Amino acid sequence: MGLTVELTTQQYEWIVTIFSFAIGVMGIASLFFFSQRREVLPRYRVSVMILCLVSAIATYNYIRLYSAWREAAVAVDGFVIRTGAPYNDAYRYADWLTTVPLLLVAFVCVLDLPLRQVRLRSILLGLLGAEMIALGYFGQIATSAEARWLWFGVGMIPFMIIQFQLYSTLGKTIDKQPAGARLAIRMARLGLTLSWPIYAIIYVLPLLGLKAPIVFVGIQIGYAVADIMAKAFYGTLIWMAAMDKSGVRTEMPAWQPASARSLTN
Amino acid sequence: MGLTVELTTQQYEWIVTIFSFAIGVMGIASLFFFSQRREVLPRYRVSVMILCLVSAIATYNYIRLYSAWREAAVAVDGFVIRTGAPYNDAYRYADWLTTVPLLLVAFVCVLDLPLRQVRLRSILLGLLGAEMIALGYFGQIATSAEARWLWFGVGMIPFMIIQFQLYSTLGKTIDKQPAGARLAIRMARLGLTLSWPIYAIIYVLPLLGLKAPIVFVGIQIGYAVADIMAKAFYGTLIWMAAMDKSGVRTEMPAWQPASARSLTN
Repeated sequence: MGLTVELTTQQYEWIVTIFSFAIGVMGIASLFFFSQRREVLPRYRVSVMILCLVSAIATYNYIRLYSAWREAAVAVDGFVIRTGAPYNDAYRYADWLTTVPLLLVAFVCVLDLPLRQVRLRSILLGLLGAEMIALGYFGQIATSAEARWLWFGVGMIPFMIIQFQLYSTLGKTIDKQPAGARLAIRMARLGLTLSWPIYAIIYVLPLLGLKAPIVFVGIQIGYAVADIMAKAFYGTLIWMAAMDKSGVRTEMPAWQPASARSLTN
Repeated sequence: MGLTVELTTQQYEWIVTIFSFAIGVMGIASLFFFSQRREVLPRYRVSVMILCLVSAIATYNYIRLYSAWREAAVAVDGFVIRTGAPYNDAYRYADWLTTVPLLLVAFVCVLDLPLRQVRLRSILLGLLGAEMIALGYFGQIATSAEARWLWFGVGMIPFMIIQFQLYSTLGKTIDKQPAGARLAIRMARLGLTLSWPIYAIIYVLPLLGLKAPIVFVGIQIGYAVADIMAKAFYGTLIWMAAMDKSGVRTEMPAWQPASARSLTN
């Protein structure tokens, strides 16, 4: 899609800054989860490593978005000049098509379900997540508002099934988690539930006739905030749950009396 | 914001050099903390890893600042020529928005508070830190001096609450630390307390009518020095405290008599 709005230099710079901010946050999130992959019990390591992959792919895609944005327009002498190059935000869909299924699998893998259940649920939720994004993309490239609404409506079906899964079947297993991990897992689920409607709201904004520059800027910032919430922040909560369930932080430091110290290190 | 001062080639090069210096220092700090993440007891590993993340994101942002500076002006034949591209120093705020909360969390995580306290204080101080930076940014982009002073004043509220927290509630727990770690933690805290006012002073410089090129150069160098103090130097002290509390440096080397050697390694 070509850039069609007139922006001020300040607005142009906000988008540059928020993309750069997202690269930074996703980058350190990825580094952090990578460093933590062996700090949890073996059974949670796949979960933590998936969080690393999700942040890594988001870092990569925000680097692409940053470049696409700088290529679509330049700021010179206080003016924003469109270069005529398209601003390709399909990078976002390429990101979500991989990260949404992975985020759901990371959630399933931290719940201590029987192995067979883990695999079935991962495949089911992963396919539903990918389907949701694919339907959204067809709506994104649709030329008429009617078609966009239609794809949006169809895309809401996997969205609702996933939410139902997270709160019914998988919700019951959360109550069986150790107390410390329960809160983190509930908050992680809430993070998904609350951040996903942000995407849906941003998705329908252009359909409401809102096409002012400020809406365009708002969409770019809104997606970045939702991505950071659904990946870095959500990831931190899943990692916390994995740490709690691994009993890592219950050890006493060396300078405390030996009697109080744990023998494991 | 466009570059509005007339600089000599020497001044232009100073800024290039200080940004490059910051990239180098932050880069090796990041590499060092990454290498040390498993040299401390498991309970301090998150703290050391956070120091790595802070330096990593600062490295990234100084690379962006370096490029932005080189894009905003070029030095040719003894003259500094502005290209018309904006010098986007919002990268600084994008950096601080992540690093200030993380620096505070690294401090809290090394104090051996009960887990619940660690989480509550981390969230509280993290949010206050982010709020302080956001308020500072609104002042930075404000067009009038009055608005800038106003945002500065409001931003001082979270600043004061954080300092109060560091010296009252958290200060009391420092006295309970082992003697070796106590000094490092006190110095790290002092590092935060002393480096933050540098930012505040630099922030108000343009409001005092000081707009000469030398002030502009001073701002760029001042921020870099404050960043290095608050991240690499502060980080080294927090790492030292974590090492002391892990009992790493109490071990005797292998060439000393067995009787003097510690049995643990």
